[in-house]
Amino acid sequence: MTFKRITRPIILGIVGDSASGKSTIAEGIAGILGSERVVSICTDDYHKFDRAERAKRGITALDPAANHIDILEQHIQLLRDGQPILKPIYNHDSGTFSQCQYVEPREYIILEGLMGYATRDMRDCYDVKLFLEPDEDLRIKWKLQRDTKVRGYSEDRVSEIIAKRATDSHNYIQPQRTFADMVVTFYPPETDQSETGAHLNVRHTLRPTLPHPDLTPVLDAAKKGFRLELARDIDGKPVDVLDIHGDISDKRAKAVEDLLWNLIPEAQHLRENVGEYLDAENHTAHSHPLALSELLITYHMVKAALGHHAI
Amino acid sequence: MTFKRITRPIILGIVGDSASGKSTIAEGIAGILGSERVVSICTDDYHKFDRAERAKRGITALDPAANHIDILEQHIQLLRDGQPILKPIYNHDSGTFSQCQYVEPREYIILEGLMGYATRDMRDCYDVKLFLEPDEDLRIKWKLQRDTKVRGYSEDRVSEIIAKRATDSHNYIQPQRTFADMVVTFYPPETDQSETGAHLNVRHTLRPTLPHPDLTPVLDAAKKGFRLELARDIDGKPVDVLDIHGDISDKRAKAVEDLLWNLIPEAQHLRENVGEYLDAENHTAHSHPLALSELLITYHMVKAALGHHAI
Repeated sequence: MTFKRITRPIILGIVGDSASGKSTIAEGIAGILGSERVVSICTDDYHKFDRAERAKRGITALDPAANHIDILEQHIQLLRDGQPILKPIYNHDSGTFSQCQYVEPREYIILEGLMGYATRDMRDCYDVKLFLEPDEDLRIKWKLQRDTKVRGYSEDRVSEIIAKRATDSHNYIQPQRTFADMVVTFYPPETDQSETGAHLNVRHTLRPTLPHPDLTPVLDAAKKGFRLELARDIDGKPVDVLDIHGDISDKRAKAVEDLLWNLIPEAQHLRENVGEYLDAENHTAHSHPLALSELLITYHMVKAALGHHAI
Repeated sequence: MTFKRITRPIILGIVGDSASGKSTIAEGIAGILGSERVVSICTDDYHKFDRAERAKRGITALDPAANHIDILEQHIQLLRDGQPILKPIYNHDSGTFSQCQYVEPREYIILEGLMGYATRDMRDCYDVKLFLEPDEDLRIKWKLQRDTKVRGYSEDRVSEIIAKRATDSHNYIQPQRTFADMVVTFYPPETDQSETGAHLNVRHTLRPTLPHPDLTPVLDAAKKGFRLELARDIDGKPVDVLDIHGDISDKRAKAVEDLLWNLIPEAQHLRENVGEYLDAENHTAHSHPLALSELLITYHMVKAALGHHAI
């Protein structure tokens, strides 16, 4: 069988609640694919109202009615069609809008945010769709870490925001999970529930909506470190569940990486900086589960670009 | 012959140099057609840089390189196709950008600004294309009036801006004249060169790119007040030149109005508020040449909507 390289941009969607790790994954993937070949867009920029106006109207940023969903859909379609867009910019620090940004599509486009799978026409634009659903206690820790350190909120204020958003999260963010090809869940190991970084485990819920790579050669017979199991998803539908443990050995992680890179020989040159992230102290750290997650996602992006997913 | 009413928006273009009367005409036409059926868009909102940035780069707002021409073209196409847009807003007072505005197309769209006919694809979107080219001394008086009173500049500063823009005006604004269906030139009567308001004459240069109405029944045998003549345009091409004098009698003006309204019986209900404008003291005033100009333009908009121009 011969494949035809896709000439339009390949689009990755990353949807998940606030502080679910969207930016970390987006930056990680962009780092692997090469930032000069990737344009990243945050769907939060399509808020209709600034923070003060939302407070006045008693509406959260998670409500589709508070977002220009139709314009977001239009812009995704334009980018997919190779057209430039002039996009709004929402400034998370000030809660207001900045001057519009002119964005031209590149080989790869990453769209991350709260609303990425809101409409059917929008969803049809993606080549790979992720949903990030970390363990809820972990997500709250991540949100506290970020919003107090980076955005300058008090812990009480962050807890208040989380509580206020819970209903909208349930009504508007959660339902988008069902449209993802992969659900990625970071969670702490049983032995250390306080872990928030490099030793987290990750679980990938793999839907048959994408041709996932054959991982048989690297599966761990002892089912430790790296294991794949047939399961039923929370909605009862059949899925593969891939578990990668935070304590996976360097040797085994390397074996999985080798397998994946060998499946995309066209992308060998991308093999660097995989799995690095900024920890709570803003230091660069490495996590095997993160590295392997990014690599699995990149695998799909490269395969899509090569036309292997278009069959 | 039967006509099919056009269901997409009908688009009027108004292009001309700074203070050539674009907003006055745009507001006048919108007033006749009914503001609830019209959306007006200023192409100046598509500046790439704020005022400070333009000064730093030594580029004027008239230079296409200082404008998102491709996005303007895209937005005109989207609107013509019945799609909403999220457009930037340039604030002339502060010289900076405000929060984007969500704009849905309406029955009629008026696009006025410096750059409306910059590309072929853009020009193909209009149903009626105007170019405003008032007598140059008159335009400078208008610009001084507006920029000192409304925008708070000193007279010296306005003269400086005019001088700085002269080359770009010649290079980028003037060349768009050739794409207009109608060139509208207000000019003072010979007897009073200082006139800037209600008693100005107007000349319409009518290109055969639109089916202009048959004005024979109301032409003035004495060729005073209202006259039509075959002429060569500045580029040597054949045109009709319609002259309406500022001192046209109320009776004759009424006769021309009656003729035009009778040619568009479908639009009788629009017959009010024609030809009013705000004079230098911000008072509402009436001008026959302005009223008849607006009516002639409205005639084409209504005819286009009825499908009479689509043959």
